[in-house]
Amino acid sequence: MLTFVGLGLWDERSITVEGRDALRNADRVFAEFYTSRLMGTDVESLADHHGVDIEVRDRAGVEQRPEPILDAAADGDAVFLTAGDTMISTTHVDLRLRAHDRGIETRVIHGTTAEAAAASLTGLQNYRFGKATTLPFPYAHGADTVPGSVCDTLDDNRERGLHTLVYLDIKRERDEYMTADVAADLLAEGYEDCVAAAVCRAGSPNPTVEAARLSALADREFGDPLHLLVVPGELHHVEADALRELAGAPAEFTEPV
Amino acid sequence: MLTFVGLGLWDERSITVEGRDALRNADRVFAEFYTSRLMGTDVESLADHHGVDIEVRDRAGVEQRPEPILDAAADGDAVFLTAGDTMISTTHVDLRLRAHDRGIETRVIHGTTAEAAAASLTGLQNYRFGKATTLPFPYAHGADTVPGSVCDTLDDNRERGLHTLVYLDIKRERDEYMTADVAADLLAEGYEDCVAAAVCRAGSPNPTVEAARLSALADREFGDPLHLLVVPGELHHVEADALRELAGAPAEFTEPV
Repeated sequence: MLTFVGLGLWDERSITVEGRDALRNADRVFAEFYTSRLMGTDVESLADHHGVDIEVRDRAGVEQRPEPILDAAADGDAVFLTAGDTMISTTHVDLRLRAHDRGIETRVIHGTTAEAAAASLTGLQNYRFGKATTLPFPYAHGADTVPGSVCDTLDDNRERGLHTLVYLDIKRERDEYMTADVAADLLAEGYEDCVAAAVCRAGSPNPTVEAARLSALADREFGDPLHLLVVPGELHHVEADALRELAGAPAEFTEPV
Repeated sequence: MLTFVGLGLWDERSITVEGRDALRNADRVFAEFYTSRLMGTDVESLADHHGVDIEVRDRAGVEQRPEPILDAAADGDAVFLTAGDTMISTTHVDLRLRAHDRGIETRVIHGTTAEAAAASLTGLQNYRFGKATTLPFPYAHGADTVPGSVCDTLDDNRERGLHTLVYLDIKRERDEYMTADVAADLLAEGYEDCVAAAVCRAGSPNPTVEAARLSALADREFGDPLHLLVVPGELHHVEADALRELAGAPAEFTEPV
């Protein structure tokens, strides 16, 4: 059996009770932290906390050489850990399909997600979000501008009055995480007067949410990662109240429609 | 302090370890189950499992008469429980704002969501979903057809190649939950040849995912609630493989773009 377990958003205690039990009862525990990581802990603390050995695999160890993971799942109970929910990346779906092809039973134990947290913490309704997008580091896409695909998603959603969740680039191998001020500065080109909410350390004991014009967010500091940006669309009155009262949004930009 | 805790998707063990600890350490525990509920347990079992008293409030007890909850939060540590993630409904945001107005500190401990589970279990990538929609019981919106708003969302997303998560109506007061076959039958009017995935009992130990034409899904039975429908947009090859191998989608409808 191969059980995919989402670790949730922050530290050892972000996992569900069901996930923790599966983790502690597994014969072998594998993990990957190249798609994302938990900022509130590290692998050693995670392993110590749960009293298990965690075998961390890099991208090649999951995508090119998954056989040891699949062999362990064929011989006993193997758990594969990822930050957030699991299956969030095609990497994990691909691994599940390989197990399926070998006739290995698979199971998914869900974890909390940045997507849900961004809606919760801003007070914006999850069903009023359009497609999400990811803002890459300029060097990563070879230009010092915002990719057209990001603008297209933003524009599409704004035309429809929908909110947009903007994931910020993560370069795990360089331990580099785009901060909300950098993202706001990039987006201020073309969306200067647009109000956005910086959602920082979602799922931690001290998350912060600050809403202001992108040009204003670009001049602030938001502390430790991970950060996200949410660009609100049309606001219902409770959403407007939440952005104003919980995130300090300027009143003139939070008129409900 | 008022701590909002999401119970997650299924039973007593769907909550995060952090949420469970907050729940067990609270001076008073309140809950509402009129926006959603856990299908894998009931309030008594939940209270027994965690060794706490849970004071369940109806809509009026949260929206018209929240004072007892706020008083408890002003005097000590109060926890407010909801199924899934918390803050999913404006009800909860409104309660948080009332606490904020009274100078009561608030905190959010996230839970797993049907939205993330639907992406995980189908193998469809979460960032390729457009706006979600909810399909109401015909009697609830006074017509025997699908509301135009649902079609608009589906059409918008399909035009853009995006997946659509369709929440199915819940009438808690009548303990009535729309099943995927009923939903598929309603949507088959106008989308007959459209392939969709029925996601049933997400977050439970035995979730099922079945992908087929809406007209075919309409003739199946999917067992106990809760059910969701996902209408896929354009498919990447891993998404197509997942729908075919994990959900039995007909090969001719899962050609990657």
